[in-house]
Amino acid sequence: MATPIGVGVIGTGFMGAAHAQSFLTVPHIFETALTPRLVAVADINKPAAEAAARRFGFGRATGDWKDVVADPAVELVSITVPNALHADIALAALKAGKHVYCEKPLAATAEAAEAMAAAADKSPVKTLVGYNYMRSPGIVYARDLIAQGVIGEPIYWRGVCDEDYMADADTPFSWRCRRDTAGFGALGDLASHLVSVARMLMGPIARVVADQKIVISERPLPGGGEAAEKRSGEVKLDRTRPAQRVENEDTAHALLQFASGVMGSFVTSRAHWGRKAHLGLEVFGRKGSILFDHERMNELQLFTKDGIDGATNGFRNILIGPEHPSYGRFSPARGHGLGFNDLKIIEIAHLLQGIAGREALYPTIPDALRIERILHAVVRSAETGAWVDTNDL
Amino acid sequence: MATPIGVGVIGTGFMGAAHAQSFLTVPHIFETALTPRLVAVADINKPAAEAAARRFGFGRATGDWKDVVADPAVELVSITVPNALHADIALAALKAGKHVYCEKPLAATAEAAEAMAAAADKSPVKTLVGYNYMRSPGIVYARDLIAQGVIGEPIYWRGVCDEDYMADADTPFSWRCRRDTAGFGALGDLASHLVSVARMLMGPIARVVADQKIVISERPLPGGGEAAEKRSGEVKLDRTRPAQRVENEDTAHALLQFASGVMGSFVTSRAHWGRKAHLGLEVFGRKGSILFDHERMNELQLFTKDGIDGATNGFRNILIGPEHPSYGRFSPARGHGLGFNDLKIIEIAHLLQGIAGREALYPTIPDALRIERILHAVVRSAETGAWVDTNDL
Amino acid sequence: MATPIGVGVIGTGFMGAAHAQSFLTVPHIFETALTPRLVAVADINKPAAEAAARRFGFGRATGDWKDVVADPAVELVSITVPNALHADIALAALKAGKHVYCEKPLAATAEAAEAMAAAADKSPVKTLVGYNYMRSPGIVYARDLIAQGVIGEPIYWRGVCDEDYMADADTPFSWRCRRDTAGFGALGDLASHLVSVARMLMGPIARVVADQKIVISERPLPGGGEAAEKRSGEVKLDRTRPAQRVENEDTAHALLQFASGVMGSFVTSRAHWGRKAHLGLEVFGRKGSILFDHERMNELQLFTKDGIDGATNGFRNILIGPEHPSYGRFSPARGHGLGFNDLKIIEIAHLLQGIAGREALYPTIPDALRIERILHAVVRSAETGAWVDTNDL
Amino acid sequence: MATPIGVGVIGTGFMGAAHAQSFLTVPHIFETALTPRLVAVADINKPAAEAAARRFGFGRATGDWKDVVADPAVELVSITVPNALHADIALAALKAGKHVYCEKPLAATAEAAEAMAAAADKSPVKTLVGYNYMRSPGIVYARDLIAQGVIGEPIYWRGVCDEDYMADADTPFSWRCRRDTAGFGALGDLASHLVSVARMLMGPIARVVADQKIVISERPLPGGGEAAEKRSGEVKLDRTRPAQRVENEDTAHALLQFASGVMGSFVTSRAHWGRKAHLGLEVFGRKGSILFDHERMNELQLFTKDGIDGATNGFRNILIGPEHPSYGRFSPARGHGLGFNDLKIIEIAHLLQGIAGREALYPTIPDALRIERILHAVVRSAETGAWVDTNDL
Repeated sequence: MATPIGVGVIGTGFMGAAHAQSFLTVPHIFETALTPRLVAVADINKPAAEAAARRFGFGRATGDWKDVVADPAVELVSITVPNALHADIALAALKAGKHVYCEKPLAATAEAAEAMAAAADKSPVKTLVGYNYMRSPGIVYARDLIAQGVIGEPIYWRGVCDEDYMADADTPFSWRCRRDTAGFGALGDLASHLVSVARMLMGPIARVVADQKIVISERPLPGGGEAAEKRSGEVKLDRTRPAQRVENEDTAHALLQFASGVMGSFVTSRAHWGRKAHLGLEVFGRKGSILFDHERMNELQLFTKDGIDGATNGFRNILIGPEHPSYGRFSPARGHGLGFNDLKIIEIAHLLQGIAGREALYPTIPDALRIERILHAVVRSAETGAWVDTNDL
Repeated sequence: MATPIGVGVIGTGFMGAAHAQSFLTVPHIFETALTPRLVAVADINKPAAEAAARRFGFGRATGDWKDVVADPAVELVSITVPNALHADIALAALKAGKHVYCEKPLAATAEAAEAMAAAADKSPVKTLVGYNYMRSPGIVYARDLIAQGVIGEPIYWRGVCDEDYMADADTPFSWRCRRDTAGFGALGDLASHLVSVARMLMGPIARVVADQKIVISERPLPGGGEAAEKRSGEVKLDRTRPAQRVENEDTAHALLQFASGVMGSFVTSRAHWGRKAHLGLEVFGRKGSILFDHERMNELQLFTKDGIDGATNGFRNILIGPEHPSYGRFSPARGHGLGFNDLKIIEIAHLLQGIAGREALYPTIPDALRIERILHAVVRSAETGAWVDTNDL
Repeated sequence: MATPIGVGVIGTGFMGAAHAQSFLTVPHIFETALTPRLVAVADINKPAAEAAARRFGFGRATGDWKDVVADPAVELVSITVPNALHADIALAALKAGKHVYCEKPLAATAEAAEAMAAAADKSPVKTLVGYNYMRSPGIVYARDLIAQGVIGEPIYWRGVCDEDYMADADTPFSWRCRRDTAGFGALGDLASHLVSVARMLMGPIARVVADQKIVISERPLPGGGEAAEKRSGEVKLDRTRPAQRVENEDTAHALLQFASGVMGSFVTSRAHWGRKAHLGLEVFGRKGSILFDHERMNELQLFTKDGIDGATNGFRNILIGPEHPSYGRFSPARGHGLGFNDLKIIEIAHLLQGIAGREALYPTIPDALRIERILHAVVRSAETGAWVDTNDL
Repeated sequence: MATPIGVGVIGTGFMGAAHAQSFLTVPHIFETALTPRLVAVADINKPAAEAAARRFGFGRATGDWKDVVADPAVELVSITVPNALHADIALAALKAGKHVYCEKPLAATAEAAEAMAAAADKSPVKTLVGYNYMRSPGIVYARDLIAQGVIGEPIYWRGVCDEDYMADADTPFSWRCRRDTAGFGALGDLASHLVSVARMLMGPIARVVADQKIVISERPLPGGGEAAEKRSGEVKLDRTRPAQRVENEDTAHALLQFASGVMGSFVTSRAHWGRKAHLGLEVFGRKGSILFDHERMNELQLFTKDGIDGATNGFRNILIGPEHPSYGRFSPARGHGLGFNDLKIIEIAHLLQGIAGREALYPTIPDALRIERILHAVVRSAETGAWVDTNDL
C-alpha cells in the first residue's frame, strides 16, 4: 500500500494547475511508492488559491507561500511562481527540510541559482526541477537509441525551440519581459529545455559562442495592468500609458562544443510566427540519424544505414507506443498518442519514486544549475563575442 | 459544490482502466456538476477486479457484474467488457434504473442492439455510448467549421480507419475473431468510429453498397488460452492445438449516399501494416476542404478558396489549441498537444453534465443504434452485392 | 549511331508542347535506338501550329491533321487533341501505316475506343498510349517492390486522384464538360491514371460497383467562347449567354474486385479544393505497405514488418534516386528530384525503344482499351447500381 | 528569330552533361534571344569528351580545354571541372573575350577567386556562376514574398544544407577531400548554396562566427584510383594502399549578422545520414514566416498572421505552379512538379538573356566572389574563434 506524502503547491497558474492535477492523477497511472495528499495551496492572489483548493481538493488555501512552507503536514513543496521568486521559496523550503519540486529555470539570476544549488547540495532532502520534456517518451527513446549505438557515435546535435507567443508586437508587456522577474527571455523559457535535452542525449557542453537580440524593443501595457499576462485569448491594451522597454532576449542562438568534442548548435525564439511548441531536435551519428519535434511528440524519425537495403532506406517515422518509455502506462495501443499533460504525470511519478528512494532523481537543483550555467554562458558570449567556457563539468 | 454520483465499472481491461482513471480525473479538468465516486468494480477474473479496486480506490470489487448493477450506491454503470456481454448488462442496469455508459459497439448482433435501444427509449435514465473520437477537439472543430460554412456545402466525405493489430498472421485467435463474442470485426472495432463521425459531420447516411473480407482466414491459439488477448507485446502461441477459423471481417469498404445526397466512402482494416490509429477523414466542400488523421490528432488541415491570394494558398496545418473545443481545459498553450486519454476525460465530462441535465447527451444508446445500423447495412450489402437502405433516419 | 524517325505531332496545347519538347530532349537523356526528327505539326488553329513549328523546329506546320498523316516523311504520329478526335486520327494513321502515340483516354465513347483497338490489333505498326504516370520512378519502383515480394501478397489497393481545376463554379464550360468531345469527366481525365496504375501493380480488375456525380451542374461560358479553356490564370466569363449544363461526372468512386480476389477502391474528383495533382496510392500486403502521392512524386513510403526491430519500425520515406527506375538517366544524386516533364521523356524513350523492337510497349492501344473498359464498367455500375464485370481479362 | 551563340563545354561529368543537355533544351522551354550551338567539348579523358560529343551533338571533342577556349566559333565557355581548375580556364576565357559560365564555387582558394573577379570586372564579356538553387521557383517566390512585405520585416534567417554522400567512412577519398583540388569541403559544395540564397533573400552578411570539423579523418583510396569518384553506386576500395587524410571540413556551422542587423545561422554537412538534398530554409518576419526544403522543392510553407482568423491559421503548404516564377514555362498545371534539371534550364535561359542584354545577370563572377568571401570568413572564424567581418559589402 502506498505511503501518503503531504504536498503544498505554490502558484495557481498554468503550471500550478498542472502540478495539482498531476499529483492527483499519478497514482492511477503509475504504481508509485508514495501517494500525494494535497495539503495546502498558496497564491498571492488569495481568491485564486481558494478556487484552486476547491477545484483540486487542497486541505487549505493561503495568500502567503510561507504558510505552506511552515505547515508541518507539508513534506513536499511545489514551486510554480515566476522565476524571480523561486530562490526565496526553495531556500526556505530546504531550510525547513521539505522536498522541493521547482519549475524551470531555477532563478532570474545566476547568483540566485547558485545559492539554490548550494543549499540543495547541503540538504538531505530531495529536489527535482521541472524539465518535463526530458520525460517525453520520444526523447527518452532517442536517448536510449543513442546509448545503444543505433545511430553510432554522435557527430552533431541541433536544437530549435521556437514559439510565437511574443511574436505580435501587441502582445503586452509582462513579468516575462523583465530581468528582475524573469531573468532570461527565450533562453530561460524555451532554450532551457533544449539544453536540458542536449545534455541528456549528448553529455556536458564545454564551450559556447552565441548571440541574442530583443526583436520587439517595447510593448504596450495590458489594460488590466502588468500582471494580467495571458498566452492566448484577447488581451486589452492600455494605450494611455507609455509602452515599456523589453529587457530580455526574444531570440538567441549559439554554436556549441560538447565535452566529447562533438559540435552542436541551437536557435530559440519566442517571436517566430507559426511555431507553437516547436522543440525540434536532430542528432546525427556515424551510422544514422534521429529527428524529433514536440509539435508531433508522438513521432520520432530514425535513419539507420545498416540492415536495410539502401534503395529502400529512408527516415522511418516511428509512432510512439507501449514499446517506448512510459507510454504503456497510459495506453496499450501504439499511435493513440500522449499529450503534454501526460509528461507532467511522468515527471511527478519520477519525483515520487525518487523521494521514496526507488529512482535517482534527475535533474536535481544542482543538476539544473549545470544546465542553466550554459544559458548564462550564452549570455556572456553574446555580450563579449567570444567563445565562453560553460563550467558545465 | 459538485454533487457526488456513485459509479460502478464493469470490466478492468484497457477500457475499464481508462474509464476508472478518467472518472477520477474529470473533476480536476472540468467543472462538472457531478463528482464521480468509485463505488464498485467487477471483473469475471476477481483478482483483476481487486487489483483495479486497489489501484483506483473503488469501494469494493466483485467477480459478478450483477453485484454492481444491484448495488444501491451505484447510480451509473460503466460497461467495458467484450461486445457480446453489453446487452445483458445494459438491459439489467436500465431495468434497475441506473444510468448507462457503454463502450461501442452496442452489441454483437443487430437484435441485441435493437433491444438495448428499445429499453433505453422507455427508460427515464441517461445513456451514453463511448464513441470518444467524436470528442476529439480537431474533429469537433471540423464539425464547427462545416456548420459555419467555412468550406461551403459539403460535396464529399471520405473516411479511412486502418490499424495493424491483426495484420500479423501469428497474432493469435481471440474473442475479437468470433461472431458470438465480438459480432463485427474491423467494422465494429474501427469503422464504427468512422460512421459515428461521418454522421456527426455530414448528417444521416441513407444507402450503402459494400464489400468485406476475412484476409487471414485462420489463426493459432495463444499459449495461455483464447482469453489472453494482447494488442501489443509478445504473445506465446500454442501450436499443438489446431488454428481457429476467423469469423469476422478483417477489411471492409463501402460507398455511401448521405440523406443529403452527398457522396461518401470508407475503408477499414485491422490488417493494414504500419497503420496504428489511422482514423483519417477528408471532407470536401464547395468552398474548401478539411483533412484530419488521428495519428496526428493535434492537427487539422484546412483549405479555403476565399480570402487568400490564390498564389499563396494551400492547405494550412492548424495546430489544435485553446481556440478549439475542449482543449483550453487541458492547457492554455497551443501546440502542446492532447493525448488519447484526454478524449475519454472529455467524454466523461459530457456524460456527467448530461446526467445532471446540463447538456444533451450524444450518442445515447438509441443514437448509437442508428450509427450501427449502418454497419449492419454494410454487412447486408456485402452479402447481397446490392445497395442497401440503412434505415438511419 | 541512332536512326532517325520522322515525327508528326497533332495538337499544340499543353500536351502537344510536352510531346514536341520531349521528342527533342529524349536523345540527350536516354541512348535510344531512334532519334526523332520533327517533321510536321498540325493544329486546327493554324497560327498556333506555325508558332509551335518555330518554337520546336518542326519542318512544317498545317491546319489540317490529315496533312500530317499523309506526309510520307512522318513515320510516327503523336495525337494530343481533345479525346473525341483521337479515334479518327488514330484510325487514319494506322491505315497509313504510321506508328501511333496517343494521349489518354482513347476516345469519348466505348465504341470508338473498341474500334481503335481493333485497328491496332490488325496493324503491324506500334502503338503507345500516354499513361505517363506509369513511368513515374516511384510508381515503377512500387511495382518492383511488390513483384519482389517485399510487402508480401497484396491484400488491398486504394487509389485517389483528386484535383481542383473544376472546383470553382466560375471555371467556365469547356469541351471537357461535354460527352461528345470529352466523353468521361474526372473518370477519363484522372481516374484513368489510377486504373492504369492499379492494373500495373495488382493485375486485372474483374468487377466494380460504383457511383458518380455532377457536382456543379452548370457553368458559365467563357468570354472568348467555349474553346478558350485554361487550367490556370484568369478567364473572363460571358454572363450574357446562358450557363451550360455539364454533362459528365465531376466525382466518381468505386469498389473493385481484382481478378486475384484482392479488394480495392478508388475515388476521383476534379472538384476537390486544395488538391492539385493528388494521385495517391496505397497498397497493403501481408508483410508490408506502400504509399505514394504524385504531389510528392520524388518520395515513396514503405513499411515492412520483417527485418526491423518492431519498436523502431515505421513507414520509411524513400527519396527517389538513381537506385530507382529511370532516375539515374537524369541525375546521379538522390533527392535532387524529377519533375512531371521528365515522365514524358521517360515515356517517349520507351516509345522509341519499342518502335525499334528493343522493348515491349505498354500500354498499347489494345492495352489501353482494357484499362478504359474498367471506366466504362464504372459508369454502367453507377447507372444500374449493381456490380458490373469489366471484361478486363 | 533567335541568334545562334557558339558554346564550348569543359568537363563531361554530372555537371558537364547537365550543361550540355540544358543548352539544347532551353530554346524549347523559354523564348530566349540566343540559341546555343554546341561547338566543342573538352575532357582531360578524351574518350569521355568524344562520348559526350556523340551524345549531345557537339561539333568536336578535345582532351585539352585550351582548344575550346581558342576556338573562334566558341563564344561562351562553360566550366564544369573540379574547383581548382576553374580559375585558369576562366582567366583564359576572359582573356580570349569569351563569355564565361562557371560552376560554383569559383575556386579552391580565396586568391584564385579574387583573381577571377578582378579579371571579370575588367572584361566586357558576361559571366554567370552556377548557383542554380537561386532559380528554384519556390526560393524565388520566397524572395518575392519577402520583398512584397508578406511576412513583414525579416527578423531571422536559418539555413541547413545537409547531404550524406560522405557519411559513410568507406566512401573513398577523392579530389573533393583535398584542399588543392576542391578547396572547401561541405562549405564549398553545400553551404555556398545556402549563402547565395541567404544573400538573395536577406541582403549582405556583415559578420560571422563559426566552427568546422573533419568528422571522418581519413578515407580509403578507391580501387580504380583517386579519380574514380562516384556519388552513388558501388565503388571498389583499394585496401592495400594506406588511407588518405581528409583535408577539408565535413561539417561547418556559423552564426551570422546581416548588414541589416538581422540575425541568422547555418549548418552544413556532407556526413549527415538520411539527408540527400536537404537545402532547408526558414525566414521569420514580423508578420509571418516562410519554410522551404529542396527535398520537397515543389512546396513552400507560408504563415501570415494577418487576414486569417487565428483559430484557423497555420502554415499553409503552397504547391508550386504557374502562378510562381518560371514554372509556367514548364507546365500550365500546379502540383505537377519541376525537377532539379529544370533549375539548370532556368539558369541557362537567364544566362542567354543576360548575354543578349535582356536581363541583368546574377550572380556574376564578382557577385560570386562576394558570396564566397563569406565562406572564407567562416573558415577564418573557425580558425580564430572570433567574429570575422566578411567584407561582403
